Amino acid sequence: MAEGERTGRFITVEGIDGCGKSTQARLLAEALGRAGYDVLMLREPGGVAISEKIRALLLDPANAEMSDTCELLLYEAARAQLVHEVIAPALAAGRMVVCDRFYDSTTAYQGYAGGVPLDVVARANALAVGACAPDLTLVFDIDPAVAARRRAARDEDRMEAKGLAYQHRVAEGFRAIAASDPARVHLIDAARDVDAIHADVVSFVKSQLRTVSE
Amino acid sequence: MAEGERTGRFITVEGIDGCGKSTQARLLAEALGRAGYDVLMLREPGGVAISEKIRALLLDPANAEMSDTCELLLYEAARAQLVHEVIAPALAAGRMVVCDRFYDSTTAYQGYAGGVPLDVVARANALAVGACAPDLTLVFDIDPAVAARRRAARDEDRMEAKGLAYQHRVAEGFRAIAASDPARVHLIDAARDVDAIHADVVSFVKSQLRTVSE
Repeated sequence: MAEGERTGRFITVEGIDGCGKSTQARLLAEALGRAGYDVLMLREPGGVAISEKIRALLLDPANAEMSDTCELLLYEAARAQLVHEVIAPALAAGRMVVCDRFYDSTTAYQGYAGGVPLDVVARANALAVGACAPDLTLVFDIDPAVAARRRAARDEDRMEAKGLAYQHRVAEGFRAIAASDPARVHLIDAARDVDAIHADVVSFVKSQLRTVSE
Repeated sequence: MAEGERTGRFITVEGIDGCGKSTQARLLAEALGRAGYDVLMLREPGGVAISEKIRALLLDPANAEMSDTCELLLYEAARAQLVHEVIAPALAAGRMVVCDRFYDSTTAYQGYAGGVPLDVVARANALAVGACAPDLTLVFDIDPAVAARRRAARDEDRMEAKGLAYQHRVAEGFRAIAASDPARVHLIDAARDVDAIHADVVSFVKSQLRTVSE
């Protein structure tokens, strides 16, 4: 079946590290499952072997000489494989796909924060995903200083090592994405407690899908 | 210095495996060196560590599930890094760069032979190289059956394992590239002996550069 044929819905969750999106994505997927949807919960690189190998190159501090363009194209290559192996077949089968990070992360990190021209990122994103653009995107918005405290216990990888000023540019990027595409991208205040945020998420997704019963 | 600033010249050699282009590229580089040019001879992935790691993923038969788009973007990522680390700095320094394979190989293999839409390949090529497009390209044209006999002693990698019909589509692709961009791409009959081909190459490059003295 061609990747363009899809009857399922594709929801992505986005935000800086420590914003709580992974927890919220899981809670959303569970709520959608209880509401009768056949839900596939993913996070890039999605357990796809080829994409995991590509991601290993991206996150290895030994590759610090990597150019912005090379980095961009590697993210897109890993994404293209995830779309091909997992997302496109799931959508074609009518499933609901919830993905923790997708191409808006590339726009925020490599574009707004990293300095790759936004039109270059947009073209690269389009090449990677083809017809599999998200239907609905939730951006979990939080002060980067708060997010930094939340993730203080974790090891830092190459992305997270870039510092608070960088995280501020990423967070601003996500806000700009939400402002530029309000029909698809919804900004959620992620400074509240988990339950309050989840209620907000379910309410919003329900209003968009019109068939979520819980 | 920005990658767009360049005073050197960029020559690429292309063709199917076994066409003799690597030998001809070396002979051309030597001739240009004797003529006084500061020549940098390269072949993709050019000894650049990051690009070599990417190429290893591409050529590993274990990655047979790789999608066409993922493969395309990996080739472009490796190329982007080579451009960033080696080609752009050399051209900015006024050097003559001779590269064994470049983005026309992607157009021929992934586009004409592999079935990725040509406009998708063209956009990916443009993303990867930015301002570092070749000034002059030599395509060594040969019957794929003859080329197959020439490379019979080599181990086959994943690309070469695709068979003679595939090599025919690649060869046709290179001819189409030459036909579509005659100002840059010159087709050379590679069925002759090494010295005759080399004389042809030097004559043509001399006529293009107007300053090659041998």
